Amino acid sequence: MSKARKTSSDKVRIFDTTLRDGEQTPGVNITPDQKIQIAIKLDELGVDAIEAGFPIVSQGEMQAIKAIALQGLKAEVCGLARAIQSDIDSAIKCDLKYVHTFIATSDIHMQYKLKMTPQQVMDSAVNAVEYAKKHGMQVEFSAEDATRSDRQFLLKVFKAVTEAGADRVDIPDTVGYRTPDYIAQIVKDVKGATDLPISVHCHNDFGLAVANAIAGINAGAACAHVTINGLGERAGNASLEEFVMALEILYNKKHNINAKLIYETSKFVSNTMGIMVQPNKAIIGENAFGHESGIHTHGIINNPLTYEPIAPEIVGRKRWMQAGKHAGAHGIRAMLEDFGIKPTDEQLHKIVEKQKNIADKGKAITTSELLSIAGEMMNNTKFEEKFKLYDFHIVTGMNLIPTAVVRLNADGKDFIASDIGVGPVDAALKAIQKISGELANVKIREYRLDSISGGSDALAEVTVKVEDKNGNVVSAKKAGEDIVVASVQAMMDAINKVLLRKVLYSKS
Amino acid sequence: MSKARKTSSDKVRIFDTTLRDGEQTPGVNITPDQKIQIAIKLDELGVDAIEAGFPIVSQGEMQAIKAIALQGLKAEVCGLARAIQSDIDSAIKCDLKYVHTFIATSDIHMQYKLKMTPQQVMDSAVNAVEYAKKHGMQVEFSAEDATRSDRQFLLKVFKAVTEAGADRVDIPDTVGYRTPDYIAQIVKDVKGATDLPISVHCHNDFGLAVANAIAGINAGAACAHVTINGLGERAGNASLEEFVMALEILYNKKHNINAKLIYETSKFVSNTMGIMVQPNKAIIGENAFGHESGIHTHGIINNPLTYEPIAPEIVGRKRWMQAGKHAGAHGIRAMLEDFGIKPTDEQLHKIVEKQKNIADKGKAITTSELLSIAGEMMNNTKFEEKFKLYDFHIVTGMNLIPTAVVRLNADGKDFIASDIGVGPVDAALKAIQKISGELANVKIREYRLDSISGGSDALAEVTVKVEDKNGNVVSAKKAGEDIVVASVQAMMDAINKVLLRKVLYSKS
Repeated sequence: MSKARKTSSDKVRIFDTTLRDGEQTPGVNITPDQKIQIAIKLDELGVDAIEAGFPIVSQGEMQAIKAIALQGLKAEVCGLARAIQSDIDSAIKCDLKYVHTFIATSDIHMQYKLKMTPQQVMDSAVNAVEYAKKHGMQVEFSAEDATRSDRQFLLKVFKAVTEAGADRVDIPDTVGYRTPDYIAQIVKDVKGATDLPISVHCHNDFGLAVANAIAGINAGAACAHVTINGLGERAGNASLEEFVMALEILYNKKHNINAKLIYETSKFVSNTMGIMVQPNKAIIGENAFGHESGIHTHGIINNPLTYEPIAPEIVGRKRWMQAGKHAGAHGIRAMLEDFGIKPTDEQLHKIVEKQKNIADKGKAITTSELLSIAGEMMNNTKFEEKFKLYDFHIVTGMNLIPTAVVRLNADGKDFIASDIGVGPVDAALKAIQKISGELANVKIREYRLDSISGGSDALAEVTVKVEDKNGNVVSAKKAGEDIVVASVQAMMDAINKVLLRKVLYSKS
Repeated sequence: MSKARKTSSDKVRIFDTTLRDGEQTPGVNITPDQKIQIAIKLDELGVDAIEAGFPIVSQGEMQAIKAIALQGLKAEVCGLARAIQSDIDSAIKCDLKYVHTFIATSDIHMQYKLKMTPQQVMDSAVNAVEYAKKHGMQVEFSAEDATRSDRQFLLKVFKAVTEAGADRVDIPDTVGYRTPDYIAQIVKDVKGATDLPISVHCHNDFGLAVANAIAGINAGAACAHVTINGLGERAGNASLEEFVMALEILYNKKHNINAKLIYETSKFVSNTMGIMVQPNKAIIGENAFGHESGIHTHGIINNPLTYEPIAPEIVGRKRWMQAGKHAGAHGIRAMLEDFGIKPTDEQLHKIVEKQKNIADKGKAITTSELLSIAGEMMNNTKFEEKFKLYDFHIVTGMNLIPTAVVRLNADGKDFIASDIGVGPVDAALKAIQKISGELANVKIREYRLDSISGGSDALAEVTVKVEDKNGNVVSAKKAGEDIVVASVQAMMDAINKVLLRKVLYSKS
């Protein structure tokens, strides 16, 4: 019989279900290869267990789970199975040594979904656990919808599966319906019914998943089921990143996660699964360590801990600041100083005034625009943009290769270049890079397009991050009705920022 | 002296700061007009108080706040002011009758940001409150960074402002650093120091803002500061929608919010401020009432409460289901029945097999593709797509008017049409609509483009929702490297779905 690797008893066990509950996020469709890549990332991150999928759902799913099981990961690899022999057989076929089997114990699920009596449910649970144990597997048993189940029946089921040989029991708050106090109490009750390690599996339908998972741990659970970016059915599961960082920073608990990889892993999963993370998401959102308002940027400049609960580096991130309506003189001065620009108090006052006027019109100000305002107010032409776009045109369509022609002035000289790409934006940015090669040898680190709902004429917001050959990364943002035009403008802005840095640093 | 409208004492007071802390979200830039529109929406939603902004920051901000103050809203309108006379004067100039004044009381803020002694902070707080009261205002006093302040000093400050005439005190967890237990205790301590109604202002840096705000209310606070979509500095504030629905459903507390308007308000704020909501966000995310996996769709069909904590209609939403790798026969049957298609068990089995094969390749299946599979497996040509795209081309650029030409076959006839637009996508979709007019008189209800980070060749995901003249809304989604091509394909899919509905319903 295989022996499961144990998380040391002073550490909270992190059971990651990004590849199972997370993959059930409506809209997520990933290939077996992508599942394997994510599993490797999760293993590097340090999760204790990876729920790799639900073997019975399809052939491709089985192939992926088997490949993950045979990958030689440090994490335990687990598969989901209903409390049905054929589901457990599918898990066995995947060469899994660890199965997560479940059956619902709430009246509503037994009556409307399973159409089974409590006794039938109890028997299925026991039979499934015995069958999986007979095949030498580690067995984690979940009583689905545990938090809406009759408490006495639930405890009877947990007792029965314990006697049947289960290794772990899990309490799912399947519809995210419960409060931290409720979760704490149910964990205590289950502890009274079994000596097995207890997991909690909390859904986020009321925004309480992380608080509930923590309440479970504080009440004696050994493990929480979590997902990267809080993915999962409906509003998703407890976010790994929020849960782990709250445990560590606010509750002083230990875990096996390498926090420095949190951001990178989040990005990888978001890119691979195609489910975006909102800017105002804790720990991993674009804005989690971003600052705009004057009071906050002022505080951050004097001491980052005034307005940050933790240093961003702890989770593999960097802080950033930007100018906006709420930006104050302190923040603007700091941003200019970052480019080696030192305005007098009077000049600074003028710069801030002008910048606020623009912001009042609802327009975002890029750093390069701020530098251009500074150049104007300080009568200093060296802040001027070196790259000026004359025009560009693009041809694209179906059965056509997207092609772009760009005409611009770079440091006084006129250039024309054309290129092709996978789409119009790709073609245009490649053409620009052909020209920029000499003056600013940049590569695109990231291209991001956030669009919001609306008609086909809705504003799209484009962010381009470029890296120069010395590893300096600058980013530029543009919004516009034409995605291609906004992308080209953001790229131009980014290149101008790289050049400004170069000019200012080399001359100052 | 003006008398503030009181929230009845059995209801939790909802203080909305979407237009102040929410507007400080980095990346948000809205015009005074947009602020006013949002204030009107918040008032309709039923919030008790609207923090309309921070008057001192700019002229545009003052104009907007004044306009909101004079709008005759049912909600109390409030403005933020540092504990400085000039800030309070700015609030007075906006015709506000209610000011939210603050000064930091934590050692780190006093030392590094304010560079003031505790006594100076105390004097400033008292002076600000007295000054505002002298001008007849309702005064809510916040001790910024209260949760990292020396408790005895904090209580002294709250006592002093109470004596100075403040009407409310607020406990901000400024950097989102505290746990529900901590918030409960600090509220109890503050209740011992003042008889005034207490607010809590919780940030979400560890994903605990909603749990913290609820803990504050349960410990005796009368009010929570919240924002639509959880907007705000960094990871944002407690989400109004999560907080209010958790209060109502899980804690059986009363409030003045008209929950049916929650989704609409969320969408409006997201569109206006340009900050997207992630699909897996509680209550308001696209997926919060969406289902894909077989077990879940099966349960939902039998009884929605198996996998939904509340009926989506409560918050102004509808549930939806889609086909994917995890979809089971029950879900697919229900989706087909929605179009009047009734396959035999054997046909259904074949349809599900084929659909899973496609999903295993990582491809999402649109409803129109599912219908096309069903048509094939049931030998029924009436499910075939009526609109077939031959090709299209687009010219766009700078100093060019985006122009599209589309060639397609509609119900057996060939058509060519061209149109211009604000960008290439707009031009292409307009050209298609020119042709579709006769067969399917549709208008675009929503165009959404979610792109994820990557290079300029990253996959973009486009969703097009169209409405036919009978008010039926269908949506189609396409992902691709070329934004324009994906948009055109999504539009074609959406039109085909409208036509399929028409054909199937009219003949069945």
